[in-house]
Order: sequence, then structure tokens, then C-alpha cells
Amino acid sequence: MFYLCRTFQGSVKDLFFILELRSGLYYFFNMFDSVDAVKEFIRHPSVSTDSNFKEGMHGARTFISELLSSAGLEVEVFETPKHPIVLATRNGDESWPHVLIYGHYDVQPADPLNLWQSPPYEPEIRDSRLYGRGAADNKGPMMVHIAGCAKLLEQYPDLPLRVTFLIEGEEEIGSPSFADFLEAQKERLKADFVLLSDTSSRSEDAISITTGLRGIFCLDVKLTGPNSDLHSGLYGGAVVNPIAALFDLCASLHDKDGFVNIPGFYDDVILPEEWERDEVARLNITDDYLKKFLNVDALMYQKGYTPVEATRFLPTLEFNGVGGGYQGEGSKTIIPSEAFAKLSCRLVPNQSVEKICNQLYKTLQERCPAGVKLEIVPEHSGPAYGVVPPDRPNTPADQPEALAKAFRAMDSAILDVFGSKPCYTREGGSVPIIGDLKRVLNVDSLMLGMFTDKSNLHAPNESIDLEMFRKGIEVSYRTLAAVAGVDA
Amino acid sequence: MFYLCRTFQGSVKDLFFILELRSGLYYFFNMFDSVDAVKEFIRHPSVSTDSNFKEGMHGARTFISELLSSAGLEVEVFETPKHPIVLATRNGDESWPHVLIYGHYDVQPADPLNLWQSPPYEPEIRDSRLYGRGAADNKGPMMVHIAGCAKLLEQYPDLPLRVTFLIEGEEEIGSPSFADFLEAQKERLKADFVLLSDTSSRSEDAISITTGLRGIFCLDVKLTGPNSDLHSGLYGGAVVNPIAALFDLCASLHDKDGFVNIPGFYDDVILPEEWERDEVARLNITDDYLKKFLNVDALMYQKGYTPVEATRFLPTLEFNGVGGGYQGEGSKTIIPSEAFAKLSCRLVPNQSVEKICNQLYKTLQERCPAGVKLEIVPEHSGPAYGVVPPDRPNTPADQPEALAKAFRAMDSAILDVFGSKPCYTREGGSVPIIGDLKRVLNVDSLMLGMFTDKSNLHAPNESIDLEMFRKGIEVSYRTLAAVAGVDA
Repeated sequence: MFYLCRTFQGSVKDLFFILELRSGLYYFFNMFDSVDAVKEFIRHPSVSTDSNFKEGMHGARTFISELLSSAGLEVEVFETPKHPIVLATRNGDESWPHVLIYGHYDVQPADPLNLWQSPPYEPEIRDSRLYGRGAADNKGPMMVHIAGCAKLLEQYPDLPLRVTFLIEGEEEIGSPSFADFLEAQKERLKADFVLLSDTSSRSEDAISITTGLRGIFCLDVKLTGPNSDLHSGLYGGAVVNPIAALFDLCASLHDKDGFVNIPGFYDDVILPEEWERDEVARLNITDDYLKKFLNVDALMYQKGYTPVEATRFLPTLEFNGVGGGYQGEGSKTIIPSEAFAKLSCRLVPNQSVEKICNQLYKTLQERCPAGVKLEIVPEHSGPAYGVVPPDRPNTPADQPEALAKAFRAMDSAILDVFGSKPCYTREGGSVPIIGDLKRVLNVDSLMLGMFTDKSNLHAPNESIDLEMFRKGIEVSYRTLAAVAGVDA
Repeated sequence: MFYLCRTFQGSVKDLFFILELRSGLYYFFNMFDSVDAVKEFIRHPSVSTDSNFKEGMHGARTFISELLSSAGLEVEVFETPKHPIVLATRNGDESWPHVLIYGHYDVQPADPLNLWQSPPYEPEIRDSRLYGRGAADNKGPMMVHIAGCAKLLEQYPDLPLRVTFLIEGEEEIGSPSFADFLEAQKERLKADFVLLSDTSSRSEDAISITTGLRGIFCLDVKLTGPNSDLHSGLYGGAVVNPIAALFDLCASLHDKDGFVNIPGFYDDVILPEEWERDEVARLNITDDYLKKFLNVDALMYQKGYTPVEATRFLPTLEFNGVGGGYQGEGSKTIIPSEAFAKLSCRLVPNQSVEKICNQLYKTLQERCPAGVKLEIVPEHSGPAYGVVPPDRPNTPADQPEALAKAFRAMDSAILDVFGSKPCYTREGGSVPIIGDLKRVLNVDSLMLGMFTDKSNLHAPNESIDLEMFRKGIEVSYRTLAAVAGVDA
């Protein structure tokens, strides 16, 4: 108890919660204090995109390697062209289930620094939330599974479960080495399922098990007209204005109902199941809430879908940026030489990035007006991903038993620990590595949402709710126990 | 001849041309050497928009004041909120015709400096062209009329002609003090017509007398959606993207034939006279020439008008700039909070800036989609202007005799000096001060085009053709002589 009192920084309510937790106080007497561990992890500024943070990357990698090693796992560090991948293995009998646990030790840059209430790399607890860069993405959520697993291994030293932690350092820069690494280590990474927390939940009362992620591809569209900016008086009326051509071309990509207007765009979209709509409804993200939250007077409505359904069930084509001509103060009366737009499409499961991408390119080429030259520059892409929980009308007959068992165990653990059933919802964002894992290893992912809207991902004052964090550890522990076939 | 040899820097061909000129060598023995004067004028970097050029502005103003004073005119300098206006007067009997000669001593900034072949403020003659910032806009062309007038006054010290030079220093920043100055000095500025050169000619073989200028108004259109940039995965499909809304809104402003799609936009446009189309045809600006010159594979065609006719007879709505969201390298998958476009309309004579402006605002408001907020910021504006030469089917019956006389004199002078009749064409650009002169003083303008496409106005390597310059002086001299009723 001395240790508990010394390190406990939550509210009295938290303390009572902890004391009440049916599963006891084990994680304070565990081999490590999980909150302290996240705090220590945050102290290493592991910004993968900025070479000035080499030391922080090294520090975070060393920290997580030692932590996993101290939990009894065999740790290897694999070099990549950029940031090494940490692999921590608990081997065992081939007949034992094999769980791959994914996480990433790199973080987003912390700027703008002046908007942080406490320094980004000096973790601080305020109102039961732990603040710091990486607290929610992904150091805290990753620790949920490390702690859950460590607890189980402490309890059952002979646990019949093979576990491989796969911790990369390039997630925030698009995981450029990840797929190649999977290919190279294909054999040893064959697993029954992947367990991870890198997606969101609506709130503590509505924990999500993410069943789908949208795919993505990005491209730049550039139109070039006259060889230099022209005087809009001397040439206005005679020359196709690249900005006007861009407006026409891009405006043609949606119909008046907000659907994407590219031939075949929706051909492979599978309508959501009734149960999926019900699950989204349970999130209770009302239009009024969204309007108020985003400070807009109206949302977008695509026939047959509520706005929140559209983000989860429908593909999109969005304009992420646009530029051309004069953008300074006042006016400059030119017909610009060129204009560009940055586009990205989010695709839903069963849509092929390649197919839609080609159709978009073709459409752009066909619709590009005479008088301007079209240039398309492809940017990054990643496939969509979908998984169906067990016991649904559309659950695949060949779903691996270990995955089904894990789904069911996590379901009842969430109900027990958080007090309400999880929401099985697809998410609008993209986590390309999930698609890579499916493609290369043919393995599905069990995604437990451990952050919420309040977590400020990629923004100042990133944080994780410590109650959700602690409960998440319990859920992870119970899930792994069920897969191993032992009592939690 | 010693002076000639010492200062002549043109080619041998130029020298022969000079020796052959029927009107003799007067301008080398004139009270000042006109080319030297332009060179000296250029050496004063009079950039009105940049306060670092205060000294250059002062130098240019002093230079032109002294030059006009040495030509026998009475010079006054009027303070304005920004850059003073120089007024140089030759008074005389009230019965004498009164000519107002307009020019501006300020220039555009010279950047990008690295693209200049010789420094912008160190005038240099290459291949019979004088290079330097202001050579063509407006120091050279202004000097045409100063030299023409000075020659005439030297020849006829008792010339029965009142002349007022009105030289402003704010043309390149939109002449903000000009209209007020005209109002304040209304009485003394009453004149029979205005003579100026601040418009273009097709070439030395097709000198233009400009009969019309398009009016202009500029505005910024800004659309604001969510209160901050959003993750395009989490919100894509639920939220109106301000860039997409901007594309829709702006694309709606033209129909598929390239005409402006605003109710009433063309209501007050008067169809061009047949003679006006003939004059434009004489310019011989073919579609092939334009396509090659601008490096485009197609021009814009509005039914009933060739591209070059469209620039002179039709109003336009152009997009001069656009911006929003992420514009850097690679991709950033956001739904931006806002997007903007910079618009300008060019209007033709008989169209009202106010009326069209209001109609555009109304149209934007009506068509702005829900989910984004529209903000319109008006920028500068100026009315269109048109004048009809004498002896045309549509010449007003009450055209002042002095103006008609000047038109006819300039016509025959151009034929004599340049070897071909002038082209009476409207120009697509806008010179708002011409509209101001008409509105405040009810006076028409006789505009002699003294620069061409090759002159690189507002761009690096601005220049004026010295042969055109010298011939222009002769035309100005003869025109003023005819108005005064003396032999040239």
C-alpha cells in the first residue's frame, strides 16, 4: 500500500474505483507500474519525421525493449532504412494460439509548443488524464496490452500462448518499412490474430471494437495553362483560366447530392448490415452534437446515410488543399499560369485502391478541358480493411477460432469492466498497416479503441484518460486469458 | 552632330532611319534629348507601393518637374495622402483649345531582379530598345508627349494652345488620390480632351488609338466551414468541405459555353459595331498566333466572338487566385476550415460596376451551399470607358470639335509617320483614371498606344522600342499642332 499511496495521483473517486475493481489491486503490485511506464515512455521524444530527435527515438526504443525483456519476452531489434522495428517474442508450442500485438513507439511532432499546458515530453496528470506527446498515440494504448499481457504471464508463467509484440518506429511517417518487414518475417509472424489499440472510442461508456478502416489514396492534380501569368484585362475572355478549369473539373467529381461522380466509384461498395447501422446508432453521435462540435450550420447528407454513417460506410473524395494564382493581400488581376488541388479518396472494404485510382485518373483525363494541361502526381495509399465479429449474419464461415474467442472474450470483458457492451463500428480513418497485415499475413485485427475525441491526437495537449487506460489493461488481460484458455 | 554621335547608341539602321525621317533631325537639337531624358527618368526608382523607394519617388518627381519647367511650363506639386501629383501648366487665352496630358511617374516593383538582363534602374539600349523599369510604363510613353509638346512650343513660342500636364505618382497602386484631386481642381482642369499613352499597340505597323477600356471590380470570396481543420478520415462524408463548396460555387459562375452565368450580367452590353470588328480584324491577332505565343493547345471560344474579340467586346469574370487547406509537399489528409478565391470582373462600356457587383454578390449569397459561411470582401474597382472616333456611324452628334480635330490629325500623322493607318480598337485592360476623367471632368481621352507585347510591362526586362518612341513624338507633335491650328 505504501507504493500505491506514493504514486497514486488520480482523484479520490479513482481510488475508490480502484479499490472496488473486482479484479483487485494486482496492477499496482505488478512487475511494473503501468502509468509510470507510460510516463517514462513519453519522456523520450521519439519524433520519427525529424532527424533532430534521433536520441529520443533511440531512447524510446531502448525503453520499450527493456520493458518487454523484463516481462520475459525475447527482444530483437531489426534495422530498417529509417527507424528500427522491435520484435518481442514469447515462443511456445506450435499448437498454442499465437497473438501478434502491434504498437508504434514513434510520435507526431509536438509543435505548436506554446499551446501545450504542460511540456509535451514532461508527462503530467491533471484530472485523471495523463498529458504528453504520445500519451494516446500510441504509447498509452500500446502499454494497455503490454501490461495486460505482463499481468497474465506473471499469473501463469506457463501460459499456453505464443505472443509476438511488433513495435514499429515509422507509423507517423506512413510505415514505409512495415510491409517489407512483414514479407521478410512472414513465417515467424504467422498468427491467429492481431491485437492492437490505435483507434478511437466514442467515450468510456461506448468503447469501440473497430471492425473496419477506410483505405486511402492521395494525389495532386495540377492544371497548367498559359506559359506565364497573364494580364487578366489583355487576355481575359480569350484564354482558359487554369483556376476556372480546376473549379469545373473538380466540381464535376461530386453530384448535386454529394455523392462522388466517377463512373464505377460505388460498384464494389457493400451496403452496411443492419447490425452495423444499429451499432453506429449506439454511438449516439447526433447531428446536433456534430454541428455544435464543429461550429457549422449544416452537415452533409448523402441519401440513405446519416452524416455519421457516411463517415463509416461510404467512400469519399475530398479536397485537402487548393492553390493557384495570387493569394496575398488585396488583388492582382492575373490569369494564372497554373492551379492545383490536393485530393484524397477514402475507400471502404471491398473497394480496390488500384481500380478506383485508375477510374479517377481516367475521369480527370476525360473531363479536363482543352486549353490546359493536366498533370497527376500520385501520393501515398493504403487499402481499406474490414473484419466481421463472430455470431453475425455476415460472419465468414472460416473465421479462425482464436479470433472468434478473442472477440467474445473482449466483448464480455468490456461489458464487465466498463459497464456497457462495446460498439462494433467501422472507423472513417485509415490505418494502412492493418491492410498490410491482412494482405501479407492474411491475419485479422482485433482493435480496442483506447482514445476519444478528447485525446487531441496529433495536436497540443494530447492525453489519455487513466481510468479508461486501467480498465483497458483489464480488458486486454481477460481477452488474452480467454485465448490462452485460462481463467482471468 | 557632335552631340548626336556622342549620345547615339542605336544601330546603324536606326541612324539611317533617323537621317531619313522627313521631319528632320529636330529632336536631337531640341531643348533636350528625349531618349536621354527617359534614361535619366528610369534612374530614379519610383516604386510607389514600397516605402523603401521614397527617395526614388522624390527623385523622379523632381526630375519630371524640372524637365517640364525647362520646357516653359509652370509647375506645381500637390501633396496627396501618399505620393504628390505634378501639374505643369501652359496658360493662355480662354478661347484657345485646352489639352490635358496625362502620365504617371511611378513604376511597378522590379522583382524578380535576377531575371533582368541589365539592372532595372540602369537603363540600357540593346537592339534599338531601351530597357529599364518604367521604360514602357509609363516613363517612355509619357515622354513622347512631353517631347512632342516641347518641340511644338519651341517652334511656336506663341502657340495658341493651353496645355496641362497631369502627372500622378499613384497609378501603380490604383490612383487612390486621383479622383479627389480632379474634383478639387475641377475648374482649372476643364479641357477639350485628354492626350495620353498608357495603352498598347499591336506593333509598329499597327499603331492603336484606343477607343475603349474595360472597367473592373475585384473581390475576395471566402468560405468557412468547421472551426478548425478536420481529419478527413474521421469526418469525411459528414461535413461540407469548404474547398468543394468553393469549387461548386465558383464553377456555377460560368456556363458550359464560357459565358458568365450571373442573371442580368450581359443586359447592358452593347454589341460591337461592324467597324469595330473590322478594326480588331486588322490587328491580325490570329488564334494560331495566340496559341503559340501563350503555349496553350486551345483558346476559349464564346459563341459569336473570336478570342481576341472577346477580350475587347465582352465582359469577364476571372479567378485571379485561390487558396485553402494544405499546399505543401506530399499530402495532408484534412478537411480544411476555410478556402478562398480572388475574383475580378472586367466590364465593357455601358455596364455599371455597381449593378453587376450587386448582382454577383446576390448570386454568390443565393448559391452558397449550407454548411459553410460566405464572406465577401470588396477590393478596388473602376468604370469602363468608351469613346467613338469622328466620322463613324455611331459618333455622338455633340463630339467636341477639338477632340474630332485631334483624332483626325493623329490618324493622318500615324499614316504618314508609321506608314499605315491606326487601328481604332478597344482594349481589354482597365485604366480607371480614364473613367474618372470622364466622370468628373466630362472629358474624353485620345490614347496613343506606345508599347507592345514585347515591352514586358510589370515584368522583368521592360523595354520600349526606340523607333516607335521617336515616331510617337512626331505623331504627338503633329496632333498638338493641328489642334492649335498651326503647321507641323
